[in-house]
Amino acid sequence: MEILISAGNWPPQPWVEGLSKSDLVDKVHVWPTEQNLEQVQVLLVWKPLPKGVVDKLPNLRFISSMGAGVEHLLGDPQIPLDLPVARIVDDRLKGDMTNFVMMGVVMHQRDMLQVLSNQKMSKWERHHYPKLKVGILGLGQLGSHLGKALVNAGFEVSGYSRSQKQIEGIDAFHGDQLAEFLSDLDVLVNLLPVTEHTVGFLNYNLFSQLKQGCYLINVARGAHLNEADLIKALEEQLLSGALLDVFKEEPLPSNHPFWSHPKITITPHIASVTTPSSAMKLVLENCRRLQSGEPFLHLVDLSRGY
Amino acid sequence: MEILISAGNWPPQPWVEGLSKSDLVDKVHVWPTEQNLEQVQVLLVWKPLPKGVVDKLPNLRFISSMGAGVEHLLGDPQIPLDLPVARIVDDRLKGDMTNFVMMGVVMHQRDMLQVLSNQKMSKWERHHYPKLKVGILGLGQLGSHLGKALVNAGFEVSGYSRSQKQIEGIDAFHGDQLAEFLSDLDVLVNLLPVTEHTVGFLNYNLFSQLKQGCYLINVARGAHLNEADLIKALEEQLLSGALLDVFKEEPLPSNHPFWSHPKITITPHIASVTTPSSAMKLVLENCRRLQSGEPFLHLVDLSRGY
Repeated sequence: MEILISAGNWPPQPWVEGLSKSDLVDKVHVWPTEQNLEQVQVLLVWKPLPKGVVDKLPNLRFISSMGAGVEHLLGDPQIPLDLPVARIVDDRLKGDMTNFVMMGVVMHQRDMLQVLSNQKMSKWERHHYPKLKVGILGLGQLGSHLGKALVNAGFEVSGYSRSQKQIEGIDAFHGDQLAEFLSDLDVLVNLLPVTEHTVGFLNYNLFSQLKQGCYLINVARGAHLNEADLIKALEEQLLSGALLDVFKEEPLPSNHPFWSHPKITITPHIASVTTPSSAMKLVLENCRRLQSGEPFLHLVDLSRGY
Repeated sequence: MEILISAGNWPPQPWVEGLSKSDLVDKVHVWPTEQNLEQVQVLLVWKPLPKGVVDKLPNLRFISSMGAGVEHLLGDPQIPLDLPVARIVDDRLKGDMTNFVMMGVVMHQRDMLQVLSNQKMSKWERHHYPKLKVGILGLGQLGSHLGKALVNAGFEVSGYSRSQKQIEGIDAFHGDQLAEFLSDLDVLVNLLPVTEHTVGFLNYNLFSQLKQGCYLINVARGAHLNEADLIKALEEQLLSGALLDVFKEEPLPSNHPFWSHPKITITPHIASVTTPSSAMKLVLENCRRLQSGEPFLHLVDLSRGY
């Protein structure tokens, strides 16, 4: 089996090396290339999907995103509608994401930025920390994994998703119940997929439906957030602060107002990162399934966007 | 039933109010008092245990610490050897402790102090974060709860205790296996009880047996730590840093060298705090058991110290 990798700004080398070791794989090509791609059956792609690449692959049978997101594959007319498209779902990625958000929630609960600032002044200041209700936007693989961990950690947890979900211990809202979901949260965590419905979802209208002083954690995508609306909501104290791991433009430009905002904590897209070694296991399993005719794992419905 | 509270520097009022509401309780006294204490059967005490208090209680039948620790009750000759002594074990306290340590471990893994410092310079700097092996000193109620949570969060976990323990997913060491336990840890978390064997346990000799660059989290008691040895071990890079929540003297004196040490993070004893409302439930349950002659919950063996 021949594979073509188009890794965007990721280094393709670990993937080439890892995949080449498998008996299933005869050859790994890296885009752009002048080589003959007629035998390529599998395309692995991180964003963006280069123009015209699918036209070079007459025998393409399967596409996999190289990460959890597939927004780079949505609505691209070069992808035939009947071609199976999968994404990476891996336990390490889920665990890393959950741990990062847990850290953010507890840092907020224990007022860690104030504590760290107090240390600089040799200031010992204790106060009781509150119980918190955490709401999760998006109850897919990552959101439900996080929700269960937060429940186990003793937090009150609710969640909102487009379609109805049932997850033990989580107060699950869906569809037109968004306002109800938002009304009593202490922390809002965004783990929505990027679709045409969710771009700009975190906007002033949404912030104004939150309990005053709610804290925002965005670990999904920068495209979900209306940046000007966030600054307005912080100024008006609708929100008490925000932990942002993802941005419309990454790296975040050095002149961006988020950097110096006293209520915004910026982390450089480190909540969870696809590790080639674990993601490749899933890719190879799907290659095996392609060969044996078994159903693929973690297919995406490109019309829904996740 | 009459109860005497000696709350040290804690405010006794929430306890008095809460306990007085129970049908079991006829009267709640607060030490020091001139009132007649002859009918007192239960003594609740936070540190220190005042001198001579037990002599005033001819009908004393049960002592409970007001927190998880009982070091203020150890070796005090005024406590009759046959008197049952209990401590507070509560789920909220366990959960709070686990969440705090989880926060500390993930902050270390993601290099959050560097990330926060980078933000001040509008600096976007990503690097891969390592998998971590976390070792827990002390596998009692708090240590085993933490260990299970760390295992669920995907960390490699080992633990060390005086007697042998078996906890699923945790590589458990005991007795003379301390050096083996210490040799390959990335993070060492101290959750030992304070006993004559554990005072000063975190000393240069122990630090020198760790894998170089291990990170220390002390959330048990300040008495466990040899402070000068910690500074020496940080200077010699045996340890990469430390998160300290507890100190020999609290509040930590403003001229203490820990405050300004670049590799030490100080939190003001906030990892977990006994909340009167949840601790009182256990105290009242033990009062009920005293009345009905049932066995007490969470008794302490003062000869072992935990």
